Amino acid sequence: MARIAIDLHGGDFGPSILISACLRYFRANPQHYGVLFGDLKECKPFIQFCPVNIEWIDAPGLGKLANKPSQLMRRDGFSSIESAFKQLVNQNVDALVSAEHTGVLLVLVAKLGQLHPAISRPVLAAWLPTLNGTAVMLDLGASFTANREQLLAYAAVGVGLIGEAAAIPRLGLLNVGTEYFKGPAALRQADQALQVWPNIEYRGFIEASAVFSGQTDIIVCDGFTGNAIIKASAGALDLTFALLKQRMSRGLMKPLLAWWLKRQLKAVLKKLDPRLANGAIVAGSDLLVVKSQGNATAHAFGSAIERAVEAVEANSTRQIRRELDKLLAH
Amino acid sequence: MARIAIDLHGGDFGPSILISACLRYFRANPQHYGVLFGDLKECKPFIQFCPVNIEWIDAPGLGKLANKPSQLMRRDGFSSIESAFKQLVNQNVDALVSAEHTGVLLVLVAKLGQLHPAISRPVLAAWLPTLNGTAVMLDLGASFTANREQLLAYAAVGVGLIGEAAAIPRLGLLNVGTEYFKGPAALRQADQALQVWPNIEYRGFIEASAVFSGQTDIIVCDGFTGNAIIKASAGALDLTFALLKQRMSRGLMKPLLAWWLKRQLKAVLKKLDPRLANGAIVAGSDLLVVKSQGNATAHAFGSAIERAVEAVEANSTRQIRRELDKLLAH
Repeated sequence: MARIAIDLHGGDFGPSILISACLRYFRANPQHYGVLFGDLKECKPFIQFCPVNIEWIDAPGLGKLANKPSQLMRRDGFSSIESAFKQLVNQNVDALVSAEHTGVLLVLVAKLGQLHPAISRPVLAAWLPTLNGTAVMLDLGASFTANREQLLAYAAVGVGLIGEAAAIPRLGLLNVGTEYFKGPAALRQADQALQVWPNIEYRGFIEASAVFSGQTDIIVCDGFTGNAIIKASAGALDLTFALLKQRMSRGLMKPLLAWWLKRQLKAVLKKLDPRLANGAIVAGSDLLVVKSQGNATAHAFGSAIERAVEAVEANSTRQIRRELDKLLAH
Repeated sequence: MARIAIDLHGGDFGPSILISACLRYFRANPQHYGVLFGDLKECKPFIQFCPVNIEWIDAPGLGKLANKPSQLMRRDGFSSIESAFKQLVNQNVDALVSAEHTGVLLVLVAKLGQLHPAISRPVLAAWLPTLNGTAVMLDLGASFTANREQLLAYAAVGVGLIGEAAAIPRLGLLNVGTEYFKGPAALRQADQALQVWPNIEYRGFIEASAVFSGQTDIIVCDGFTGNAIIKASAGALDLTFALLKQRMSRGLMKPLLAWWLKRQLKAVLKKLDPRLANGAIVAGSDLLVVKSQGNATAHAFGSAIERAVEAVEANSTRQIRRELDKLLAH
């Protein structure tokens, strides 16, 4: 049984999409428990459809403060995200899911959580689809740059997150080329340290083209690049399908064929699109926080809730702490 | 008429693929002239098929020196790439095409070319396919990071490269979000300067998902990120087509349908794949150098030759210099 706090504000389209994701998820999973934080005036129409494993807590959205996350450091607020964090700190819930800006989540983790001494800032980690399964990639934008120590901490977090999913996880360090002499100094230094890490199969430098190939279980990179890789792939997929659609609408083909192709494409898209593999872990502290994308659909927000439940069940926060402890002792 | 020097070594698969690309290109374009640098012992079987607008110059490959480009600074060598550069410096040719490592080309440009005072290092720029045409993206890996001044120089190079293709080019600065307060300081500083640039339509920050959408004609970013974006998109495309192929080979479908779908996909792939839009300009000096990818096919290497000819005809080097002059005067 997992207790999940959910911040109903923060998404780009308001609470209603997030609420319908919650209703669907917790109705289908009566063994888990959802604590929903939001403006109950907006939520009223949904409350009557609510299963018994959902609890509502009245709290307003952050409003304009969402764009000035540093101000959250100095105030003791009761917005939906701040209230949800308080419940998490008090261990009334096991995890928190929010579609709020990354900056807001990072400030609140820094303010209310205990960052592990082996990591200087939380890191954003997510599961990507690959040719033969999934891979964990981090950082996805919690920081913009990463030095040797940060890259090694990311690697440890990745190993903790993978947990029992891979006995000896294969880890790759993202670079502009695969040769050992390529890239910035921080990467070459981290590469040397990873060569002698125990309990991983270190694959050395990998290029961004190999991220989705399934050669690695963990991909480590700085946050600016990770963010760009996820978004560029989504953009490339959008373009592919837009062009295929254009071709199909030229009227030369039979409608039946078009319908069939669309079905094939949809199935592939579903497997591929990083946006559907929604839910990134804000890792590195004692708090289990899952960030959904701001523009998540109900389906995608449901994935983020599921990701949180899986992380609770896999005891990810403890696994990550153990790996960071090892790094510190090293 | 353009005279193009071509380095037959440097490609991952040896000279023969590059030679066949040259033979095809210069046979189809008798108004242009190719000067091919390579080990003539290896080239002999091809020379008899050679059209009159191709000239051969005997020069060995770089060998292991390709992995230690800094050593090229101190020697006066006669390898194919060094000999080709000398012809370019002496203006016996208008442009040079090579599939050599980026590092080698950067060292030789720095050693033999005149870098414009407004730019601290050459920049790698390429054309990407978009939903409604193409866009120039830079830097793609000549440097790893970029400060405010470098980003502005990249923008100027981009405007020069676009030339007459767009009356008022739309320019975007790549960032993790579109809001003005997002991202590292260098980007926010460059953003402020670009807000008041004359003769461009500045679109502000764009995310990597918008790179292929056709909203901008020029996309400016640091080289590490640009490199990752190109490769990640290629990887995402590979994965899409691999998964579609998997589905098609399940035997449930009619062979005719599979054949038809493959044709549709190929046509789309051809329009999309950044690898087919091969040929990146090493810009910022008085030398016109085009870098082909090391693993280019004959078709892709042909695109790089064409890119060089187009740049000669558009007088790109002069256009870029003019834009960098303006930046310096500003």
